Amino acid sequence: MTHPSSTDAYEELNVKSVVDYVQQVPALRERIGSGPLEAREAGEGNMNVVFLVWSQRDPERALIVKQAVPYVRVAGPEWPLTLDRMRLELAALREQRKRVPLRVPEVFYGDETMAVAVMEYLSPHEILRGPLTRGEQFPRLAEHLAEFMAVLHFSTSDMALSGEEKKHLARQFSNPAMCRLQEDCVFTNPFMDHPQNDFIEPHASLARATWRDWPLKVAIVEIKQTYVTRAQALLHGDLHTGSIMVTPTDTRVIDPEFAFYGPIGYDVGTLLAHLTIAWAVRGVSGDVPTPQVSQRGRMRDLVREVLVRYFERFDELWRNGCQGHLASGPYWADEGGEAAFGAYRADVLTGILQDSAGHAGCEILRRILGIVTVPELSEIEDISSRAGLERELHRIARTWLVDRSRIRSVDDLLATLEEPA
Amino acid sequence: MTHPSSTDAYEELNVKSVVDYVQQVPALRERIGSGPLEAREAGEGNMNVVFLVWSQRDPERALIVKQAVPYVRVAGPEWPLTLDRMRLELAALREQRKRVPLRVPEVFYGDETMAVAVMEYLSPHEILRGPLTRGEQFPRLAEHLAEFMAVLHFSTSDMALSGEEKKHLARQFSNPAMCRLQEDCVFTNPFMDHPQNDFIEPHASLARATWRDWPLKVAIVEIKQTYVTRAQALLHGDLHTGSIMVTPTDTRVIDPEFAFYGPIGYDVGTLLAHLTIAWAVRGVSGDVPTPQVSQRGRMRDLVREVLVRYFERFDELWRNGCQGHLASGPYWADEGGEAAFGAYRADVLTGILQDSAGHAGCEILRRILGIVTVPELSEIEDISSRAGLERELHRIARTWLVDRSRIRSVDDLLATLEEPA
Repeated sequence: MTHPSSTDAYEELNVKSVVDYVQQVPALRERIGSGPLEAREAGEGNMNVVFLVWSQRDPERALIVKQAVPYVRVAGPEWPLTLDRMRLELAALREQRKRVPLRVPEVFYGDETMAVAVMEYLSPHEILRGPLTRGEQFPRLAEHLAEFMAVLHFSTSDMALSGEEKKHLARQFSNPAMCRLQEDCVFTNPFMDHPQNDFIEPHASLARATWRDWPLKVAIVEIKQTYVTRAQALLHGDLHTGSIMVTPTDTRVIDPEFAFYGPIGYDVGTLLAHLTIAWAVRGVSGDVPTPQVSQRGRMRDLVREVLVRYFERFDELWRNGCQGHLASGPYWADEGGEAAFGAYRADVLTGILQDSAGHAGCEILRRILGIVTVPELSEIEDISSRAGLERELHRIARTWLVDRSRIRSVDDLLATLEEPA
Repeated sequence: MTHPSSTDAYEELNVKSVVDYVQQVPALRERIGSGPLEAREAGEGNMNVVFLVWSQRDPERALIVKQAVPYVRVAGPEWPLTLDRMRLELAALREQRKRVPLRVPEVFYGDETMAVAVMEYLSPHEILRGPLTRGEQFPRLAEHLAEFMAVLHFSTSDMALSGEEKKHLARQFSNPAMCRLQEDCVFTNPFMDHPQNDFIEPHASLARATWRDWPLKVAIVEIKQTYVTRAQALLHGDLHTGSIMVTPTDTRVIDPEFAFYGPIGYDVGTLLAHLTIAWAVRGVSGDVPTPQVSQRGRMRDLVREVLVRYFERFDELWRNGCQGHLASGPYWADEGGEAAFGAYRADVLTGILQDSAGHAGCEILRRILGIVTVPELSEIEDISSRAGLERELHRIARTWLVDRSRIRSVDDLLATLEEPA
C-alpha cells in the first residue's frame, strides 16, 4: 500500500511528522476521530521506532504507528538492516491475526515504502516481561499462549494444509535478513570468541569453557541446523516475553518481524527460555539472594501449564482436523490405523518437545554469553548474585541441549530445573 | 527469454513446427549449421515431448528440443500439469551445470512462454536403465554419479553457502506442483487403497497387508515429512536410472524438472532404489529365474562404490571448504575442535545414509504397488518370476524403512540385500 503523500521515498518519522502522516490517510483519520492530533514515542524497541498517536478530543482512540529504520535501532546506522522487514511483519501480523484473531493486534494500515504499520493501540496492556519478573500473575496467560502457538503452528503445517498451500506460504515468509541475525546472534557468535559477545566479567572462564565444550557445541549446531533447514510451520520467530502484551484477562502477541517457516520447537523453546529466566529470577530479590521457593514454584507451574496445554491443544487440532497432505484421514483408515495415528502423533510431539528444549537452551545461553541480554538479568545489581543465577541457568540450558533426546515428557524437561547446581 | 515468433501464446510443437521454431533463432541456426533442417521425436518421456533437430548437411550438430505439455504426457490432457515446470527445469539445468559442468548437458536456449529448452545433443549416449539392466558395465559411472550428487548437494547446502545465498536459492526452487506429484505418487497413494494403484494380480494380498502394516506406514510418513519440510540442499529431485545418460566414459544427468530444496537422502535414496532394482533383476534371466550370483555381486559392488565415493567426496568437500554459515571454520577453531568437527560430520553423513535408506525403501515400494512401475520389472514376462522378485524387493525396502536407524555404515545398508527371503 502506498501512502497518499509518499513519493516512493522513505523518510524516518518523528513525533511531528508522524502526526502529518496519520492526518493524510482518510481511513486512519476516521478511526482516530476529529480534532488536532498529538504523538509521543512509545516503547523502546531494539529494531524499530514506535509512536502513539491520538486526537486531543478522544485520546482513547489512539493508534500505534510502528516504523522500521534502515538499521538495527539499538546499534545505530553502522549496523544496517533491510527495511523490507516491515513487509514481512505486516504479512505476518495479518496471517497470524487471520488464524488466531483474539491473540494478535489488528493492523489498520500498512505502507511498505515508508516501512510503516499502523495498528490497534492495546490498552491497558503492558509488556509481559516486567510484571512477570515482579511475580505478577495472569490467570489466563498459559491458556492464551498455548492457544496462540498451537493454532498458528498446526494450521500452517503440512498436517493441516495441502502441499501447495504450505509451499506458497513458506515462499512468502522467506525472511533471509532477519533469520541471518538470529543465526549469528542466537546460534553462533555466543559460542566462540567473537568481538560482539558481551558477558559479565565473572563469566570469562565460563565463556572460554563453553567455547571448547564440544558435546554442547555439537548439540548447538544440530539445533541450528533445524533453524536453517526445517520448514515445519509459520513461526512467530521471536516469541520472548517482550513480544507479549497482557492485562489480567487478555494476551496479545506482537512484533513478528522475525516470522518465517521454521522448526516449531524454535517458538516453543524461545518462550520456554524466557519463562525459565523469569523462574530463575524469582530466586533472587533485590541485592540479596533469597531462595523464594514458592514464587519459583508458581513460575514452574506456569511453564508446565503452557507446555502441557500447548501439546494437548496441538494434538486435539491434529486428531480432529487431519486434512493436511502429510498424511490425511484415508492414510490411517485401515484396521489399526487409529492407534497407529495416535502413536505417531505422540512421537511427533515428543520430537517437538525435545527440539524446544534444545532451542530454549540456545536462547538462554546466548542471553548470558552473547550480545543482547535481558533486563531481568542485567538489572540485578549485585554482580555475584547475577553470576550465580546465570551459572544456574547455564547448567539448565546445557542439560536441555546435550540430553534433549532423553526428554520424553514435560515433567522430564522440568525436572532439570530442580537438580542441584 | 521470448522466442522471436512468440506472440505470448503457447503452442504444442510437432516434428514440422519444431523445425520452424529452431529456424527462427539465430543463435540456434548458427549452432546447427546451414541447410534444410529435419526433426524426429526422440525418446519417450512420461512428462514432456522431446525432438531431435538437425541439418541435413551436418547431422552431427543436432540439437535436443524439449517441450513441456500442459498435462502429464503419459496420462493425457485429463491430468493437467503446469507448464511452469519448464521454467524450473531450465533454472535447475543451469544451476546444476554451473556447479557440476561435466555431468550436466549444456542449455543453449530457453523459452518460458513455449515451455521449451534447447540443449546439447548427447551422442553416443544412451539412457542408463536399459544397458544397466542388461548387465553392461560403465567403469566410471560410480565416480561420476557420486561426484554429481556430492558437489550439487554440498555446494547448495548451509555447509557451503551463507544463510542469504541458501534462502535465495531455496525460494527460487520452490516447486509446489511437481513436489505435489511426488508427495502423492511416491509417499502416499501406494500405501493405501487408492484407485490409481496398479500392481500385478499376485500382489493383491501383499498390497492389502502393506496398507495395514503400521510400523512401515509410520516410517513412510516420517520419511515423507523430510520431503515436505527439510530444505537441506538443491536436489535433482528424480534421480533414477532413466534420468542418467551414459557412454563407456561419460555420464550426464538430465531432466531435473522435479528439482527443489529438499532432504539430501531423497536424491541418494532414489538412485539407490533404482540401482537396487537393477541388482534384483540381475537375479532373473528371461523367463527362467536363474540366480546369477556373480552378476548380482557386480551390481552390488556398483551400489557400494556409488555410496562410499559419495560420502567420502561429501566429507572431503566439507572438511576442506567449511565456509557455510551452518558452522564455519572459526566455530571449530578452539582446542579439540578438529576432532569434534570430524565426529559431527560423521554423524550428519550417517543421518543422510539412514534417510537415503528410507527414501530408497519408499521408491522401491511405490514402483511395486503404485501407479508407475519401471520397465525392468514390467518387462519380465513370467508373472510368478516378477512377483517373486518384487516380493524380495518389498522385503528389502521394508527393512530399510523400518530399521533405518540401525544403519551405521554402507555395509550395514547393503547387508539387507543378502538376507534370506
